[in-house]
Amino acid sequence: MSVGGFLLALVAIFVAAKLFGEIAERLGQPAVLGEIIGGIVVGVSGLGLVDARDHTIHLLSELGVILLLFVIGLSTDLKKLMSVGDSATAVAVVGVALPFAGGAALGHLLGFPTMVAVLLGASLTATSVGITARVLSDLGHLQDDESQVVLGAAVVDDVIGLVLLTIISTLAAGGALNTPAILRIVGVAFGFVIVAIVLGSYLAPRLLRLVERIDLARGLFFASMVFAFLLAYIAQRVGSAVIIGSFAAGLVLARTNKAKEIEKEIHDIAQFFIPIFFVVIGAALDLRTLNPFDPGARRFLLIGLGLTAVGIVGKVAAGFIVTRKDLRKIVIGVGMMPRGEVGLIFAQVGLSTKLLSDGLYSAVALMVMLTTLLTPPLLRRLLIAKTPSGPLDEVDLVFDAPSD
Amino acid sequence: MSVGGFLLALVAIFVAAKLFGEIAERLGQPAVLGEIIGGIVVGVSGLGLVDARDHTIHLLSELGVILLLFVIGLSTDLKKLMSVGDSATAVAVVGVALPFAGGAALGHLLGFPTMVAVLLGASLTATSVGITARVLSDLGHLQDDESQVVLGAAVVDDVIGLVLLTIISTLAAGGALNTPAILRIVGVAFGFVIVAIVLGSYLAPRLLRLVERIDLARGLFFASMVFAFLLAYIAQRVGSAVIIGSFAAGLVLARTNKAKEIEKEIHDIAQFFIPIFFVVIGAALDLRTLNPFDPGARRFLLIGLGLTAVGIVGKVAAGFIVTRKDLRKIVIGVGMMPRGEVGLIFAQVGLSTKLLSDGLYSAVALMVMLTTLLTPPLLRRLLIAKTPSGPLDEVDLVFDAPSD
Repeated sequence: MSVGGFLLALVAIFVAAKLFGEIAERLGQPAVLGEIIGGIVVGVSGLGLVDARDHTIHLLSELGVILLLFVIGLSTDLKKLMSVGDSATAVAVVGVALPFAGGAALGHLLGFPTMVAVLLGASLTATSVGITARVLSDLGHLQDDESQVVLGAAVVDDVIGLVLLTIISTLAAGGALNTPAILRIVGVAFGFVIVAIVLGSYLAPRLLRLVERIDLARGLFFASMVFAFLLAYIAQRVGSAVIIGSFAAGLVLARTNKAKEIEKEIHDIAQFFIPIFFVVIGAALDLRTLNPFDPGARRFLLIGLGLTAVGIVGKVAAGFIVTRKDLRKIVIGVGMMPRGEVGLIFAQVGLSTKLLSDGLYSAVALMVMLTTLLTPPLLRRLLIAKTPSGPLDEVDLVFDAPSD
Repeated sequence: MSVGGFLLALVAIFVAAKLFGEIAERLGQPAVLGEIIGGIVVGVSGLGLVDARDHTIHLLSELGVILLLFVIGLSTDLKKLMSVGDSATAVAVVGVALPFAGGAALGHLLGFPTMVAVLLGASLTATSVGITARVLSDLGHLQDDESQVVLGAAVVDDVIGLVLLTIISTLAAGGALNTPAILRIVGVAFGFVIVAIVLGSYLAPRLLRLVERIDLARGLFFASMVFAFLLAYIAQRVGSAVIIGSFAAGLVLARTNKAKEIEKEIHDIAQFFIPIFFVVIGAALDLRTLNPFDPGARRFLLIGLGLTAVGIVGKVAAGFIVTRKDLRKIVIGVGMMPRGEVGLIFAQVGLSTKLLSDGLYSAVALMVMLTTLLTPPLLRRLLIAKTPSGPLDEVDLVFDAPSD
């Protein structure tokens, strides 16, 4: 991509994000829904200005979701999150098991080989924590107890998804796995979160004091970004996910006395990169592969709808595992619905190992698309029903700061 | 580059920029000198964490210099710039002609073919407006009359450089050029600046009123970035340079009543991207090709020093073309000294068309390196001598806003 093409893509991303985000909000929907639809308009299904497969665009969108999870972590109270830890873990485990079993069963019923059925099931497992967190934040409900369960469950489920991905990639490539190998993968993925939070909680206040003492211009701005990027990097290196790393960085800094200040410092950078992530999600959706008037595509359209149904029922049902009486289980279940990049990564593993055909890849993409686009309006209805005073009046620190 | 490698590169860039920028400032030098040296430390000559040839890193550094020139444009008074227009044009023309003639003569004396000598001369022509503007801004002297001459001359000289580049690329590739073709190139390159400023001055206030009326959250932030990127894109498309486009965008917005507000809005984004440009300049410098203990490298080291001498003398002499008595001609000449990316682009054209050997490329790189590293301390000495009250006490709006 030339510098000119890059500038044009950025302009398309920002115009699409602001324009469609604003329209969504005026229709009472979360801005993120508009940003994804704006992405469809400027992406491969529309004007073709934003190429989601371009390496630089991909890296910038990753930076967007890394900063999003950092900001979400910064406004998350670790104690509160831990207090719903058992509910979150239960929701995550059931919310992985049910869609996995359902997807694999559907694949089996349709007569696909076992490994293909397993891949279809796996692609239904991981909630896109980015989309869910952003919707809750857009609606001003990030601090609700239900939201905390969803956030915790989405993080746990992301880690489970990574473990599954490692296992399935190995199997799909024809490799063998034994119990010690699986246990090691699980141990590293979960161990990182614990070590990052424990060690980070020790180091973060010292880092902040150091920055204060050497009195760098904009020291806090650069130090907190470096901290978030570094934890994201380490997370990926040890076999966890970048967004788990930046979320941990946010959680840790949230416990220092500089949390509010850091939130202000990185606000503009977050606002620059986060819309790139959501527009790129939309830009990657190829609607043409799902043309109902194309007889060849019709079968995969139906399989995609089947996967979507299994995916929705599985996650919503998982919400009902929670035993606490004061929580609205349906909100939790719907909050877990959106699949995102992780679902597509499973499908891509299938595509590259020739286990999935282009048609089945499109079916998975349809499931990702529908669960992603249905969640924002559904969650909004549920949350507005809960607080009739109007959640839209709440001011969200991160995403809706007024321009003056 | 993987997401992990990208994050590590960003961490290296920010740590190097802040650390060495701070050290430079405490030694009384402009921060930009520290950022370039920091780049050498983390780049190809040092730790190898930042690969200046990586496509994504290159695009982000371009975004940095585009935003830098936008910010510089925003704090530039078009009328004041125009009032020194004749001096600036004279400095630019002489400052291109002298180094070009000197470099070509040096190449001829050393027995190189004509086209090689022409390429060496051409690589000496273009001042890096980014480095110069940043040094003047770091030192708080951007509004001096001398600085306005330098800024205007650097912009004109960048356009002349582009025209030269088009002509030489055509010749180097074995193509032929006639007078109408050359006139067309010159016309487009200069025409863009005029059209952008005239049309932009008409459109900008209307754009700002529109943004205000539809009342977007952070509308000014996104609108001004989109405006700058769009003009940069158009500039490149019509055959001018991206930085000329964003500089014109800044000049135009500077004349609206929102200039100060826009400067505040884009401040953090500029602070994020601008250091990437300067660290990458340092990271690209390969000191190993100039090892004086390597007999093979010694000849090119001497040629590089010769080019440096010609480059410095040519630009400094050009400063003395100015006839206004109240201006310090030496400040103007030294301000025009730093060569940057454009010099290297000429050398790369030579490398790719096999006209320049690796050794001659390194000689040009040495010239770029020395003129770039010598300018900040030299300018500082000259400017401090001019205002003994201490320019470091001035507060620079853009680059040194305190963190609290």
